[in-house]
Amino acid sequence: MLKNAIVGQSGGPSAVINSTLAGVIDACFKSDDIGTLYGGRHGIEGMLAEDIIDLSALYSEDMLNRLKASPAMALGSCRFKLPSPSDGAEIYEKLEAIFKKYNIGYFFYIGGNDSMDTILKLSRYFKEAGSDIKFAGVPKTIDNDLTLTDHTPGFGSSAKYLATTMREIITDTSIYNVKSVTIVEIMGRNSGWLTLAASLPKLLGGDKPDLTYLPERPFRDDSFIEDIKHAFEKSGNIVVAVSEGLKDEQGNYVGSSCQSGAVDIFGHAYLSGVGKYLEMLVRSKLGCKVRSIELNLMQRCSSHLASKTDVEEAFSVGFNAVQLAVGGSSGFMACIKRTNSDPYSYEIIPGDIEKIANYEKLVPDRWLDLDDPGVKREIVDYILPLTKGDAEKTLDEFGLPEHFNLL
Amino acid sequence: MLKNAIVGQSGGPSAVINSTLAGVIDACFKSDDIGTLYGGRHGIEGMLAEDIIDLSALYSEDMLNRLKASPAMALGSCRFKLPSPSDGAEIYEKLEAIFKKYNIGYFFYIGGNDSMDTILKLSRYFKEAGSDIKFAGVPKTIDNDLTLTDHTPGFGSSAKYLATTMREIITDTSIYNVKSVTIVEIMGRNSGWLTLAASLPKLLGGDKPDLTYLPERPFRDDSFIEDIKHAFEKSGNIVVAVSEGLKDEQGNYVGSSCQSGAVDIFGHAYLSGVGKYLEMLVRSKLGCKVRSIELNLMQRCSSHLASKTDVEEAFSVGFNAVQLAVGGSSGFMACIKRTNSDPYSYEIIPGDIEKIANYEKLVPDRWLDLDDPGVKREIVDYILPLTKGDAEKTLDEFGLPEHFNLL
Repeated sequence: MLKNAIVGQSGGPSAVINSTLAGVIDACFKSDDIGTLYGGRHGIEGMLAEDIIDLSALYSEDMLNRLKASPAMALGSCRFKLPSPSDGAEIYEKLEAIFKKYNIGYFFYIGGNDSMDTILKLSRYFKEAGSDIKFAGVPKTIDNDLTLTDHTPGFGSSAKYLATTMREIITDTSIYNVKSVTIVEIMGRNSGWLTLAASLPKLLGGDKPDLTYLPERPFRDDSFIEDIKHAFEKSGNIVVAVSEGLKDEQGNYVGSSCQSGAVDIFGHAYLSGVGKYLEMLVRSKLGCKVRSIELNLMQRCSSHLASKTDVEEAFSVGFNAVQLAVGGSSGFMACIKRTNSDPYSYEIIPGDIEKIANYEKLVPDRWLDLDDPGVKREIVDYILPLTKGDAEKTLDEFGLPEHFNLL
Repeated sequence: MLKNAIVGQSGGPSAVINSTLAGVIDACFKSDDIGTLYGGRHGIEGMLAEDIIDLSALYSEDMLNRLKASPAMALGSCRFKLPSPSDGAEIYEKLEAIFKKYNIGYFFYIGGNDSMDTILKLSRYFKEAGSDIKFAGVPKTIDNDLTLTDHTPGFGSSAKYLATTMREIITDTSIYNVKSVTIVEIMGRNSGWLTLAASLPKLLGGDKPDLTYLPERPFRDDSFIEDIKHAFEKSGNIVVAVSEGLKDEQGNYVGSSCQSGAVDIFGHAYLSGVGKYLEMLVRSKLGCKVRSIELNLMQRCSSHLASKTDVEEAFSVGFNAVQLAVGGSSGFMACIKRTNSDPYSYEIIPGDIEKIANYEKLVPDRWLDLDDPGVKREIVDYILPLTKGDAEKTLDEFGLPEHFNLL
């Protein structure tokens, strides 16, 4: 009897995570080695609650195309930190029973760093238990902070949104003859990849955003104010790109003095907004017109601006993860290996989950000097190919985007 | 000797105000009655400083197309309230001298309510002074709050951005199995037109945004919390659309109670938008997961999502304003008269500036009941045609939008 497969989505949304799900579905239904494909709703949490659906009904070109054009997670998400087997034996036993009941031979988990930790723990546990279930991680995170892969699906679309929106904000803020500072806050707790993408208008040869601050380098309030004064010597309307995760020299989040100290269930500090803090700082120190803009959920869910390259690659990562698992791999994440930048090409290879889960890929040191022409070129060569092309949209009868979910 | 024309842009940006400028340029250069077309940079402020440029160089199809695809104001903007002639005689005399020097016979001002006040004052003053300069207002404001015109150019593109983005936010926030409230703050100090547009996903038959609050109706904190509790009976993820200009029963801006005494960490008055205030209110009263999203400048400058209908209409309004002025009209605003909704058609007619400047068009009372099916249909019939079609984009060699300005 053929083994079945199960797939779940976890973590924060992106514009292309459903394209990866479509790739998994397509590969499973095309495979002669997989019986039924099940979906766990709300990730591992839903699987534990046996909130499991048969995805056979989705297997049509039309359904896969609609899925590819919908942001966020059609299967729903969760923020569930799997305990170690010693702390949560009953969870592992429950999963074992459910996998047995559904005759699961393949487990696909689409997500970011926390999801790869789930793959790591499950693959270790089931291997030790003598099970031959194949566990495959499929990367998605707009943060682009997973190791061993050239980049993560979702990053290209967010980068395209950020570069486009930043250019629009630059144009919008350039029209008044009044000194002003506009601070744009971009996602990224520890890594500045997205803030680099928001700086593309400058990296490509423009003069704005005037200033860029990544979390990879300690931030100082006084240097920031000096940088702005200096920027005002060249332009009256200063635009600043900042990562939400900026930290001071002691490693505290910038602005944390006005925060409560609350943490989320993964133990991350709850951030109330570096942009708003810097806005107050500029108003207090310089007294000029200042506003902060938080790009919020829009930077991860704007599928109307999704990159065609990203959507197709996300599909391909999901598709190949299935093929690798069917070929016998387990305990891996499907990684993107760039084989050329211009024209852009890549292949999908398995990466050892032991070297991925709980690691974090930061922007390399030598890329922190954005005024260096060589660095500019390298960053552009890295990011720009991933933003290329407009993804297909599915519109409803009213001309608005039509989204699809299974919740 | 042929009389010349001058054009300026004023107020806040929109995605299509440059399309209106392109219409003015096209009509002026096609007219046998107009000599040179000048542009005043930064509106009336720039004209007073004689910051005036010859726009002849812009007259090519390529330049006009690039202009049509650029958000904000290519000529720059100002926020200058023209005093009355009795309070600012020297300003009027200076303008008279400048208009004489440049042999101006036609004055076009593209803007919103304050700009129409400028047209009112100038047309009265120059008429009394025996001048035959024609003064024409050309409407633009995403706020859609000008009278005598069916709607204003710029509203359709913002409406399209808001409806699209709201649908993406709804999808993004639907994926977690955790009770949550998402509050989306939309522009509109006194009128709720844009917040109605953001509610299109519901007005078109969906179930979200769950709640919509316009500034036309007094807002009560306690009713709001009751409304949310009620909404939680039907759904776990509540999405709320609110206008930035919500006021309480005393006419004070909602949230101003925490502005009056509150200071930021630098001791300055803490100004919080209504979204952030309501976020804090929900957290305090209900204790559930809550976030607020301010759509900020993006709702007025996202030309990547501009409506083709809006861009073409904005061009047409500018073009016809010139033709009406050349035909002898003065002291008017070019108004859009809708002649049909499906298929959408319109004509441009002059509207008496005396009945436009300093008036404000609010959402009519009977449209405030968004649960009434008849009201839903009327609002959709009004807004939806204005959002139709994707405007042409001009992209640079990197695939990013290329914007154009004259500053």
